[in-house]
Amino acid sequence: MLHAATHDPSVVTLDFANGTRARFHAIWLRDNALDPETRDPGNGQRLITIGDIPADTSVSAAEVVEGDLRVTFQPEDKTVTFPASWLADHAYDREMSHAKGWIAPGITTWDASIEAPGADWAEVHRSTAAKRAWLAAVAEYGFAKLTGGPTEPESLLKVADLFGYVRETNYGPYFEVRTEVNPTNLAFTGLGLQAHTDNPYRDPVPTLQILYCLENSAKGGDSIVVDGFRAAERLREENPEGFALLAGYPARFEYRGSDGVCLRSRRPMIELSPDGQLIGIRFNNRSAAPLVDIPFDRMEAYYAAYRQLAGYIDDPAMGVSFKLEPGESFIVDNTRVLHARTGYSGAGSRWLQGCYADKDGLLSTLAALDMTQPEAAE
Amino acid sequence: MLHAATHDPSVVTLDFANGTRARFHAIWLRDNALDPETRDPGNGQRLITIGDIPADTSVSAAEVVEGDLRVTFQPEDKTVTFPASWLADHAYDREMSHAKGWIAPGITTWDASIEAPGADWAEVHRSTAAKRAWLAAVAEYGFAKLTGGPTEPESLLKVADLFGYVRETNYGPYFEVRTEVNPTNLAFTGLGLQAHTDNPYRDPVPTLQILYCLENSAKGGDSIVVDGFRAAERLREENPEGFALLAGYPARFEYRGSDGVCLRSRRPMIELSPDGQLIGIRFNNRSAAPLVDIPFDRMEAYYAAYRQLAGYIDDPAMGVSFKLEPGESFIVDNTRVLHARTGYSGAGSRWLQGCYADKDGLLSTLAALDMTQPEAAE
Repeated sequence: MLHAATHDPSVVTLDFANGTRARFHAIWLRDNALDPETRDPGNGQRLITIGDIPADTSVSAAEVVEGDLRVTFQPEDKTVTFPASWLADHAYDREMSHAKGWIAPGITTWDASIEAPGADWAEVHRSTAAKRAWLAAVAEYGFAKLTGGPTEPESLLKVADLFGYVRETNYGPYFEVRTEVNPTNLAFTGLGLQAHTDNPYRDPVPTLQILYCLENSAKGGDSIVVDGFRAAERLREENPEGFALLAGYPARFEYRGSDGVCLRSRRPMIELSPDGQLIGIRFNNRSAAPLVDIPFDRMEAYYAAYRQLAGYIDDPAMGVSFKLEPGESFIVDNTRVLHARTGYSGAGSRWLQGCYADKDGLLSTLAALDMTQPEAAE
Repeated sequence: MLHAATHDPSVVTLDFANGTRARFHAIWLRDNALDPETRDPGNGQRLITIGDIPADTSVSAAEVVEGDLRVTFQPEDKTVTFPASWLADHAYDREMSHAKGWIAPGITTWDASIEAPGADWAEVHRSTAAKRAWLAAVAEYGFAKLTGGPTEPESLLKVADLFGYVRETNYGPYFEVRTEVNPTNLAFTGLGLQAHTDNPYRDPVPTLQILYCLENSAKGGDSIVVDGFRAAERLREENPEGFALLAGYPARFEYRGSDGVCLRSRRPMIELSPDGQLIGIRFNNRSAAPLVDIPFDRMEAYYAAYRQLAGYIDDPAMGVSFKLEPGESFIVDNTRVLHARTGYSGAGSRWLQGCYADKDGLLSTLAALDMTQPEAAE
């Protein structure tokens, strides 16, 4: 609800009923006009380009009509109404002094003290609320278990179908995680694996991974997940210069494990948006390639920060452990949460299947559920 | 070939036979040791973690042996040999003062004056050199045509099979680009479309797109491609502050065209690596959402830069035009090259199929071809 609107040719100043004030530029308002000539009423897409808007666009009138804003733009002499609630939701006249490495609202970082979020196979198929809660856990915590599923091969593809699409790679639509002779990747051995994100040598990285257990009677082979964002937070607190180095220079990753495959990337271990939001972690000792983009006089400090970050990642106080039973699986946000496994050997077998998928599909499914089920979206 | 090696505990200084000198840190050398205890001889993956390397690692001996470097590390008392050529290839003791927006070696920016690079369907199937040249054109120019292909539906999937994997999305493994009643996307109308990158509302964006023509007898419907990197270069030259604004703040993109789909992203129009390399362009008037992450006092300058960038993109001197015939297709690097189409209508038909894929597969296939066919990689 709007209380008052004042304007000059380039800026409209609004007083909302709740006492807040926000300014909007003429060009911004014109570009975001909600009328059917500007936005397609069917699919919501913008019908005009920035070049269609006169460069000398100005406001000739701005008034409050039934609590909403009615603005007239010149030289088009075009009058458009903006709902007050829409304006409040899109106000940009606000404090934005973000520290480097700030974390988006809706994300909760964690350590070993949390219980692994999880959901039940039958429940997420039966109940939209259960499905929503499961996907919301992946969005908030970066991982979630799914228990009580079938033990047939390829069941992981049914997990992906619940929210999105498999990302096929050189490893196939999915891959077998079990001991192989002459493994092309150390994942396909019984070795323990340090916590890592998958495929940092791939650009774009797969943003989700599903690991699905079919057999796990071997001794060992526990799964561990670690919140890379929490590790980065700890580094930022203890060694802000080191954090800035890992975020400020690209690392290199490389994989050439099999014929016809030669994957390389040049991306930082800690990825920030241009305005400093923490948006990604890449960490993988096996595929880390020589670092050649860090200036000579910063290399030792970079390595010290890398060692410190690795120390947080290896810290038992950070990791959530569980042993997957047949029919159990988990999803990790591969841009944030690292996964490890303890070594395994001896009698018994361990057979997991893994596949990649992307966050766009998961977050879209979640957002669509939130829109159609607003009562469940508390 | 090495001429001389000197060292102190933390740094080895090398004089190469060609007169260049480069320093390497003890910790860097130890981390990148090429011995079989450090790197798996089979798949090349690193077997140790940064935490396995003593924090007080130092060099106790460094000498040139048969032109290569032999180093002994303490406290492990471990001796490792590094080939001189490997050291030269990975030297990081060099000038790195990059300007914001520098472009990677191997990328050539272009305007309307170039001839569209292309290849022939039968040739790329028959000749490894032709296939390599076709993929190398996508890597260098960000697009390439493929002509002389079949006119059966789904032929575009065979194009993807030549180098990588389709990225399935809510639009399916592939989608039909033709006029629809009640289109969920303006692409599925006869309207002209301003040059754009696809799906900037998706994170990660599909990094490649294939558009394959099955019918094109309508009047109009020409394809136009524009080098977004060239447009960004022009902006950087003419308005460096504006370039910094478009690279320095995230834009927002959104798509909710159909049931169950709500895709949103928060990514800049011009994407730079942390050390300033130009690595991505996102530009799409239809799905651009309100900009809410630019501070109030920079919004007008941001809009001016956006308008200027759009002006370069719309400039006829920038775009390469062609009308696809049935059986012809093109690939675009969707992180760099924008594509447009002129409007079409009247008698005749226009039927394209489109799909997404990713650059990791294409660049991997290209790199593998270069390794097995070095003579073709001049």
